[in-house]
Amino acid sequence: MQFTSEQCLDDGVLEREFTLGEIPGILWTPESASAPAPLILLGHPPLGLRKMYPRLVDRARHSAAEGFATATIELPGSGDRPRWPALDQARADLRRAMAAGEPVDDELINALVLPLVEKAVPEWQAALDSLLSLPEIGGPVGYSGGVISIGIRLAVVEPRVSAAVLFAGSLVPRAMFEEARQVTIPLHVLLQWDDEGNDRQAALDLFDAFGTREKTLHANLGGHTGVPEFAGDAANQFFIRHLR
Amino acid sequence: MQFTSEQCLDDGVLEREFTLGEIPGILWTPESASAPAPLILLGHPPLGLRKMYPRLVDRARHSAAEGFATATIELPGSGDRPRWPALDQARADLRRAMAAGEPVDDELINALVLPLVEKAVPEWQAALDSLLSLPEIGGPVGYSGGVISIGIRLAVVEPRVSAAVLFAGSLVPRAMFEEARQVTIPLHVLLQWDDEGNDRQAALDLFDAFGTREKTLHANLGGHTGVPEFAGDAANQFFIRHLR
Repeated sequence: MQFTSEQCLDDGVLEREFTLGEIPGILWTPESASAPAPLILLGHPPLGLRKMYPRLVDRARHSAAEGFATATIELPGSGDRPRWPALDQARADLRRAMAAGEPVDDELINALVLPLVEKAVPEWQAALDSLLSLPEIGGPVGYSGGVISIGIRLAVVEPRVSAAVLFAGSLVPRAMFEEARQVTIPLHVLLQWDDEGNDRQAALDLFDAFGTREKTLHANLGGHTGVPEFAGDAANQFFIRHLR
Repeated sequence: MQFTSEQCLDDGVLEREFTLGEIPGILWTPESASAPAPLILLGHPPLGLRKMYPRLVDRARHSAAEGFATATIELPGSGDRPRWPALDQARADLRRAMAAGEPVDDELINALVLPLVEKAVPEWQAALDSLLSLPEIGGPVGYSGGVISIGIRLAVVEPRVSAAVLFAGSLVPRAMFEEARQVTIPLHVLLQWDDEGNDRQAALDLFDAFGTREKTLHANLGGHTGVPEFAGDAANQFFIRHLR
């Protein structure tokens, strides 16, 4: 991991950009931390880190105020990383089907999500290796938001992730429901009740499928991008309970 | 309203029992309050105040720590109030149907819930009249928990109630779904995902029906009485946002 830039945000948060091989990422740490900080991995949709930056830095600031470090990396095929033609094609196929009012079948969802999960999850694990080797980062580790299937896979395969906030806001392959049954860490699931691009019943079925003994669903009125500020506060409270 | 007893609990909460005509009730106020306190009406199931006291006083203490006064009254036909044969009959009919594995039809639910709503709601409104005349009680007023149909009716007909925490843990007559559409105050709805005596899908349909623009559903794993402590904290946060 190579740090490529460093700046101090006005509220005492140190923001450092880094690269991990070809993968760009950002690390935010509270400057006032006296002990190694717990870490939250900030997931995001595959729209590119630059585009997502305002929302990510907002979540990072809120987390830093509670003493948490946060980090994120670019997803494969997004932002400044090389295009991934198969992913672009799958996205185009899905958009075309939705625009035409055709049913969004499993094949379309699988083609879009499964390769992304397969490629991204080992990258987040590699980032975790590097981040946890920094003296200012301790543990435990949480995962928050982004593509929910990536969060599910990480929760299953990565024992260092001990709690997760998942955003039920994207299409989930049927195969991920089986993985959901294997999740045993505490979960806090956010659902936007009127999410345009999401299937509410599938999200409720997924919540039901999670195998963990502590899971909470927070559903709020509004569309995909309308998550209310107090829902972010509640997610922070979840991490305070589990990561401190 | 006549106060009949008074004691100071160990954490600086003043507990006063009262009667309002034939109706017993309890008022808890934070002793340290310097200004008239906002008020939360504490709903409860029709099992009698004595039986519900441990859970009620726990909620009262948590609310007092945030500066809220809380009050509750006995429901008609419960506790030390005169028996209500029609209500007892309706409850027995429902229990018999459930024990026999028969479908719980609308008629059974209506017979149990609607008369209780009709009789209880004006009593809570009368209690509110008396409580708001006390110098130590100001406003705004919230309603929390108990029989959800009573909460729905109060939210619709009582303009002094400005926010409500509802517990989706009891059967709801179809007619109440129409009333739910008329609710316009902020709602925080609790659902126990594996509630034995409740219909999960009906609870989700009810949440969908509420007409208000701010509504949040907090669903937690577990049975009817298994509401986790952090769910109570989250409900408190809701009242802090809306009643302070």
